[in-house]
Amino acid sequence: MSESVVAAVSYEFGRTEVAEIPMPDISDDAGLLRVEMTGVCGSDWPYYQKYPGTKGPLILGHEPVGRVETLGRIARDRFGVKEGDRVALEEYLPCGHCKYCRSGDFRLCDATDTLNRPDAVRYGSTPISRAPSLWGGYSRFQYLHPNSVFHRVPDHVPAKQATLALPLGNGVEWAYLQGKARIGEAVVIQGPGQQGLACVVAAKEAGASCIIVTGLSTPADERRLALAKQLGADYTVNVDKVNLFDAVKDATGGEMADLVIDCASGGTETVVSAINLARKSGRIIMGGRKFKKIPEFDSDVLISRFLTVKGMRGHSWDAVELGLGIIASGRYALDGMCTHTFPLAEVDQALRTVGGQGLPGAIHCTVSPWE
Amino acid sequence: MSESVVAAVSYEFGRTEVAEIPMPDISDDAGLLRVEMTGVCGSDWPYYQKYPGTKGPLILGHEPVGRVETLGRIARDRFGVKEGDRVALEEYLPCGHCKYCRSGDFRLCDATDTLNRPDAVRYGSTPISRAPSLWGGYSRFQYLHPNSVFHRVPDHVPAKQATLALPLGNGVEWAYLQGKARIGEAVVIQGPGQQGLACVVAAKEAGASCIIVTGLSTPADERRLALAKQLGADYTVNVDKVNLFDAVKDATGGEMADLVIDCASGGTETVVSAINLARKSGRIIMGGRKFKKIPEFDSDVLISRFLTVKGMRGHSWDAVELGLGIIASGRYALDGMCTHTFPLAEVDQALRTVGGQGLPGAIHCTVSPWE
Amino acid sequence: MSESVVAAVSYEFGRTEVAEIPMPDISDDAGLLRVEMTGVCGSDWPYYQKYPGTKGPLILGHEPVGRVETLGRIARDRFGVKEGDRVALEEYLPCGHCKYCRSGDFRLCDATDTLNRPDAVRYGSTPISRAPSLWGGYSRFQYLHPNSVFHRVPDHVPAKQATLALPLGNGVEWAYLQGKARIGEAVVIQGPGQQGLACVVAAKEAGASCIIVTGLSTPADERRLALAKQLGADYTVNVDKVNLFDAVKDATGGEMADLVIDCASGGTETVVSAINLARKSGRIIMGGRKFKKIPEFDSDVLISRFLTVKGMRGHSWDAVELGLGIIASGRYALDGMCTHTFPLAEVDQALRTVGGQGLPGAIHCTVSPWE
Amino acid sequence: MSESVVAAVSYEFGRTEVAEIPMPDISDDAGLLRVEMTGVCGSDWPYYQKYPGTKGPLILGHEPVGRVETLGRIARDRFGVKEGDRVALEEYLPCGHCKYCRSGDFRLCDATDTLNRPDAVRYGSTPISRAPSLWGGYSRFQYLHPNSVFHRVPDHVPAKQATLALPLGNGVEWAYLQGKARIGEAVVIQGPGQQGLACVVAAKEAGASCIIVTGLSTPADERRLALAKQLGADYTVNVDKVNLFDAVKDATGGEMADLVIDCASGGTETVVSAINLARKSGRIIMGGRKFKKIPEFDSDVLISRFLTVKGMRGHSWDAVELGLGIIASGRYALDGMCTHTFPLAEVDQALRTVGGQGLPGAIHCTVSPWE
Repeated sequence: MSESVVAAVSYEFGRTEVAEIPMPDISDDAGLLRVEMTGVCGSDWPYYQKYPGTKGPLILGHEPVGRVETLGRIARDRFGVKEGDRVALEEYLPCGHCKYCRSGDFRLCDATDTLNRPDAVRYGSTPISRAPSLWGGYSRFQYLHPNSVFHRVPDHVPAKQATLALPLGNGVEWAYLQGKARIGEAVVIQGPGQQGLACVVAAKEAGASCIIVTGLSTPADERRLALAKQLGADYTVNVDKVNLFDAVKDATGGEMADLVIDCASGGTETVVSAINLARKSGRIIMGGRKFKKIPEFDSDVLISRFLTVKGMRGHSWDAVELGLGIIASGRYALDGMCTHTFPLAEVDQALRTVGGQGLPGAIHCTVSPWE
Repeated sequence: MSESVVAAVSYEFGRTEVAEIPMPDISDDAGLLRVEMTGVCGSDWPYYQKYPGTKGPLILGHEPVGRVETLGRIARDRFGVKEGDRVALEEYLPCGHCKYCRSGDFRLCDATDTLNRPDAVRYGSTPISRAPSLWGGYSRFQYLHPNSVFHRVPDHVPAKQATLALPLGNGVEWAYLQGKARIGEAVVIQGPGQQGLACVVAAKEAGASCIIVTGLSTPADERRLALAKQLGADYTVNVDKVNLFDAVKDATGGEMADLVIDCASGGTETVVSAINLARKSGRIIMGGRKFKKIPEFDSDVLISRFLTVKGMRGHSWDAVELGLGIIASGRYALDGMCTHTFPLAEVDQALRTVGGQGLPGAIHCTVSPWE
Repeated sequence: MSESVVAAVSYEFGRTEVAEIPMPDISDDAGLLRVEMTGVCGSDWPYYQKYPGTKGPLILGHEPVGRVETLGRIARDRFGVKEGDRVALEEYLPCGHCKYCRSGDFRLCDATDTLNRPDAVRYGSTPISRAPSLWGGYSRFQYLHPNSVFHRVPDHVPAKQATLALPLGNGVEWAYLQGKARIGEAVVIQGPGQQGLACVVAAKEAGASCIIVTGLSTPADERRLALAKQLGADYTVNVDKVNLFDAVKDATGGEMADLVIDCASGGTETVVSAINLARKSGRIIMGGRKFKKIPEFDSDVLISRFLTVKGMRGHSWDAVELGLGIIASGRYALDGMCTHTFPLAEVDQALRTVGGQGLPGAIHCTVSPWE
Repeated sequence: MSESVVAAVSYEFGRTEVAEIPMPDISDDAGLLRVEMTGVCGSDWPYYQKYPGTKGPLILGHEPVGRVETLGRIARDRFGVKEGDRVALEEYLPCGHCKYCRSGDFRLCDATDTLNRPDAVRYGSTPISRAPSLWGGYSRFQYLHPNSVFHRVPDHVPAKQATLALPLGNGVEWAYLQGKARIGEAVVIQGPGQQGLACVVAAKEAGASCIIVTGLSTPADERRLALAKQLGADYTVNVDKVNLFDAVKDATGGEMADLVIDCASGGTETVVSAINLARKSGRIIMGGRKFKKIPEFDSDVLISRFLTVKGMRGHSWDAVELGLGIIASGRYALDGMCTHTFPLAEVDQALRTVGGQGLPGAIHCTVSPWE
């Protein structure tokens, strides 16, 4: 094996450079992944803005697909994969023994919950100062920590689509496993980005009979809304032009939505609209963080209309397996979501593009480390 | 049968008078209840302030217990009770054929949802101008509308306790059926009034191992918190004296609450504390209306900690049956909740007492129409 | 209105005759349905063999679609439909007040459970000796009992397909609401008759990714299996020619079935195969009655493989609504299921055909009373 | 550390001898438990009869409680416990990466499922020929395999009661997590052995209001039924003297049981009675294996009465945690279950006693390896 690994290291916001990281020794309970391609998550953008400053230089990227290159003696038993297997990795590195891990909810494990525990370890969020540095997917090789979580990826799935495993897993988790979209239901999805589109696919698979996706009057959103229709949305609503409440009322014959999923980030108005669009006894999944308070929030509306609001992020193991099954089936035109691929040397551009400040038209972007 | 019915009619806020209402003819699909005793619900206070003005004079009271006096020919088949049976009535008069009624969730039925439909019909909320006037429990007889919902009450249950059927039904609904309190869980109940105490009993029945009830530094709350302990609470917290977050942290060994139930009315701070007291992936039941916005509400906390917030009011049929089963078992010292009983002539005082402006020490008050 | 109703009365097994039944007076809480078309249920065959002897002459048929002709004064409020509305009726006439009715499970209501209560009343199972005689759908008019359960049928749905409301409701109930078929699952359906095909549709809607239907080497089953494929089955298995266990093993990559639904009647071997085809922790829905003991049943297999076996018949209100939604969507080639339509004069032939002793190729047969 | 471990090795059925096993080297990902006490499971009796012959000599016992003696470098991170911690161990050694392990259902993992996979590894079921031999709890030390599953045991819990962690975990799993016993329900438990009594405790915790336990006319069962009452049973039934169906009918006011749990082994009649005792739509948990077919089994009864039959064995992690919480609470007189304690030299007698061929009066027996 070569003596160093070529990787894109983000030294500060705006400065990511291709560097050579010494090839680490792999301990008995660890391994190494040869990265084939890595998805650029929407969260990479705020990570990029924040982590180099607070944590130090790091290799971003936590949606890798690749082949197992090396396995330590103990890892061979423990990982359930063998050298050469094609896999997608989760970003989580759960402890394996807490109550959440033991009950199947390992994404709640404190050991990998970087949002609640600043010192938690997670792929794509851990600095190179922490040995063995190779914590990110924007690299030719990624370290396989003893607590890595694997999913098998069939050979016939194109790499770009395979890197949708986690985003689609999120869609399955939010719309189906947590949102409980079911046959015949009306589902509103606010925000037509990668996450919203993944929810469209999951709601469609679940048999929802009326899927409504909202977006803005931007060229980007117009393309995304068109794609939403291809993926199974029954209606799309440009909220800059149309009264959203009335549109949902019309589309549902006055019944309003059984489930509303808020995938929009930043603005507080989608929290309020999510609540207003739900039918009596409806469910609301809050997925997009706002980074501010919601002064218009009225808890009495939850009471008077028996509403459930559930905050959600990430995915269960099961959700990712279901997502990969959907990808592998070929039933959805997921290629339409895969808009841009960047070499390692252009990770800065990849990140800016996902952050809305680079190339236009981004939905699902990937980094291809061997190009 | 006598030619008129003695009832307490609320003509305007502050003026309730005993009046004689003509005994109505009972149609084939209706009946008449001889009221034994009626509970005074916390909601009677805002109803009293509002409905005489907006709807006109009415007989309040929607937690009656009594015996079936008369049944029309059709009602005999339809009600599932016979003359002489001792019953508790629900306040709801559901249509019986909408999707909510057909699926067992009849409290969501538009026909009886006075909060969302001003013209809906419900016991204790309907004016005397609507025939046959006898819509309330503060009366010697109450009309049995064709859509009445009955629960049987065993003869051995004292009337005062039997009128706890609906409040305890709410406790079972909020803490157990919706809140899903289960064996070994930590449950925080904010607000030690009748509703909070009912949640204590339900959580105890469900096997919760750590029940914490909060209250204020008032003589009323001090008595209620002492009663909470008798009913099964493990800890009580006076939030005026003790840091609530720390108290819950200590009581739960740092784990925080699996379930928080907000039964407090008015102040917005309990919405915020409910969210802060829940463990990662915990559940919050919002039961107490605030009549104002919650400017400190931060939806990102729901997301970062995977929280579920569920607005709730009222009860299912099953919840009331379970509540009556608990009452009938005699396992809980429910007599301690039954603080005051008033004759019809003192319904004004009864309402003020429940509204915090009458006699001190009220928890569960009743009106006894034959005294 | 005319003074008599033209109906097909089954006087004894093998002798159904068109007769004129006096037009009944309709009481205040009842009504009359003008029948457009009625489905012939598989259960009509055993009913035909048994009920004329045990109960006396009766009008069979309990899957009617039609328009409300007349409504009594009370029924107008109670039924949730108005004169002229197009509806499908359930066969159940639930009491409305027992614990099952109050919780949405009205098909369990003793009042309409003819299997457990011989004196229960149900459409298509009640003799003409019980007033007002018009209890069955093989008639131009059907009595609307006060406890009738309605579903609205959109005008654009062809009558033949609309009479699939109950069979498809069963499919939704068995495969989805009770069987809990979900995204990505492998579902085996034993028996390709009307009920099995309805399960195919429901499993497909639910996102099952591997649907396997079994049948025999008969011309009838060969046609049905071909139709199963059109409706969404991934595999069909002729159990006379192929080893079923191996076929399921192959189709599922060795995982076996998450859910097995037994829609086959008569033979005991499908009980045993259902259990053997389920994966560890799998679910089995038993829908087809055998009328004999199962000597090969081994409860230890349930224990060693954590299996759940659930006996099921009929449908919930929700299931029929979902079924009608699927029919109305036009997404499935349900016309292929509608094989034969008979006039009233040929009800004997219709029943024999469904019983396998009349015309060949029957799947869903209907009776059209005005032809 | 000493150079050998004193352990009771079962060489053949009827011949268990205290032997010295060489103290193994502990690899980085493993550890060693100093056994304080080990429960004798009912399954030890058939294991004893079978495994020495089919697998070779082994140390039986899979319900140990003790303190962590040694931990390898990797195990220190992975086990979530540290040296000196007091723990109960599960018998399972799940792989950690299969779909069952990843979803929290690790007892279904093939790697530890000795019933379906003869070569699976599990504590108390693995021969000494497999290194490092110390697979059983009837020993002063037990090997801590890398996949060990731990539960913390508070210091104040007596060792005898602590060894009830797994049996009580089974009770919680069967009666509560899988059987879904809930407030107000009637639960019949067939068989008053350790497992049945654990179900009594779990059903009581769950709020069941009518718990009925059945047994035979033997002195052993009479003692057990008396203990059942102390633990919370409302009724006990000697099926040799009383008609069980009638007894359940009387106790439930004719409603029959919401849940029946069959903890009886051997006889097929309890399968049939379990089904007959359940109310319409009731649930049946089959926990006791019969080692023969059930010729009287009638699947039509499941269909006509909407019954669910679920085969069950073992426990989830959550169930054991809840069980330990119940033990630690001291709310139940569990000391009454702890009938016999044996030193290592009397493991043969301990096994015979649990198998019904040794000392009389056994319920929960333990082996104390340092006495």
